[in-house]
Amino acid sequence: MNIPFIQRPTVFDMPRFFIPNISLKDQNIIISAADEAHHIVRVLRLKTGDDVELINGLGTLARGVITRILDHEVFIRINDCLTMKPREKGRIILACALPKKAKFEVILEKCTELGVDEIIPMMTERTEVRPHSGGGKEERFEKVIVNASKQSKRLFFPILHPVMTFDDVLTRFASPERVVFIPWLEGNRISLKDAVSRNPSSKDFLVLIGPEGDFTSQEVERSIERGALAVTLGDNTLKVDTAATAVVAGLRLFCDA
Amino acid sequence: MNIPFIQRPTVFDMPRFFIPNISLKDQNIIISAADEAHHIVRVLRLKTGDDVELINGLGTLARGVITRILDHEVFIRINDCLTMKPREKGRIILACALPKKAKFEVILEKCTELGVDEIIPMMTERTEVRPHSGGGKEERFEKVIVNASKQSKRLFFPILHPVMTFDDVLTRFASPERVVFIPWLEGNRISLKDAVSRNPSSKDFLVLIGPEGDFTSQEVERSIERGALAVTLGDNTLKVDTAATAVVAGLRLFCDA
Repeated sequence: MNIPFIQRPTVFDMPRFFIPNISLKDQNIIISAADEAHHIVRVLRLKTGDDVELINGLGTLARGVITRILDHEVFIRINDCLTMKPREKGRIILACALPKKAKFEVILEKCTELGVDEIIPMMTERTEVRPHSGGGKEERFEKVIVNASKQSKRLFFPILHPVMTFDDVLTRFASPERVVFIPWLEGNRISLKDAVSRNPSSKDFLVLIGPEGDFTSQEVERSIERGALAVTLGDNTLKVDTAATAVVAGLRLFCDA
Repeated sequence: MNIPFIQRPTVFDMPRFFIPNISLKDQNIIISAADEAHHIVRVLRLKTGDDVELINGLGTLARGVITRILDHEVFIRINDCLTMKPREKGRIILACALPKKAKFEVILEKCTELGVDEIIPMMTERTEVRPHSGGGKEERFEKVIVNASKQSKRLFFPILHPVMTFDDVLTRFASPERVVFIPWLEGNRISLKDAVSRNPSSKDFLVLIGPEGDFTSQEVERSIERGALAVTLGDNTLKVDTAATAVVAGLRLFCDA
């Protein structure tokens, strides 16, 4: 991104808000989403005349000024609006077992900051957490992603998939063009670096992260049948959230992903 | 490490305890440190005859059996004792500004898991946290490192330095043989990957991580005068703990550090 005004350090930044439906044509926007309006009026106590930034999570960044504040609505006049093209680099899809101890929210937050493209909460044979529907978990997950994207100045939000089983992830996301990694604590494994260098031309990655009790050997075998590479992340045993964050960070920083 | 018994997955592992003074010659060890003895007797409720592992943080791993339990002492007969040589690979020193929001404990925990060798809590111009002595913070930091080392099966614990100023870190740790990175949100920077590839032979790294408000340009200039490379960690603005963890992870996984 070469927009100078995005590149300033955090301390000087304007407040940024997520509005899922910014149109380039609109000169005036009304923020009526309860939590964003509340944040503007009650938390940040912004006033008429204050500058704000708006994002839609799909690459658009608008700058505007507050023209009017009602009880649950904030009126903004857009002065400037840019829509970025999606990155043409690599793509990282993270399928991570729902951890027992670590919070999945932490994984969502850190990997969103680091630029993961898609996240799949995953059920494996040794996953001890059962996802219960209706608990508002998905909304909470989405909120974590929105907040992490805002804070990290990410213009394209990652896609959050619904909870899937390990085999569904393989069926739907493992493909010959994609490099699939399955970190494992036992058996024959290569380093993540070697796994990447075996496929120097592909920048499209699927990372499978197991639960506290690791993947079963049957799961690893089934993934290998679908082209996955069993990898080691070093001598130390990493927690689920550390492993997920470390692989996404490494791929972003060192593999042009 | 090629000791088969270390390589089993976590689920089957023996309880592991930190005893700072294991000698290879001792056949019998008495654990009298209050917290470790409490953990054995009250938390894990281990009994006479149970197997345990002992580590000293300096590369020794012993296996033994509990022979006697008194009020505040646990007697262990050592059956097996191995002392590993330190890794001859690279070295990662992390000097990280004391963050305002993120917890330094999280940084210690994650970077210990990932294999950082030395950690320096750092004061910079824009560091808003003042380290107060006597608050027991150093003991808490040490405890986080011990716990993360135990959990991640790390045999060599990282060194925790006392809090230092940015300039003290440069004076004491920047050297021509060491590759020094200073991630920054502004100015002329290269990618971390390019910075590493400029120094392909050196695996000895010093990573400087700034606070929420970033380093000042004067700090960056002073570090460059001492040989540091100003780097970018990508388009997204990372939190302090995410930045520290990401760089350590990337160096470990992709740079043979």
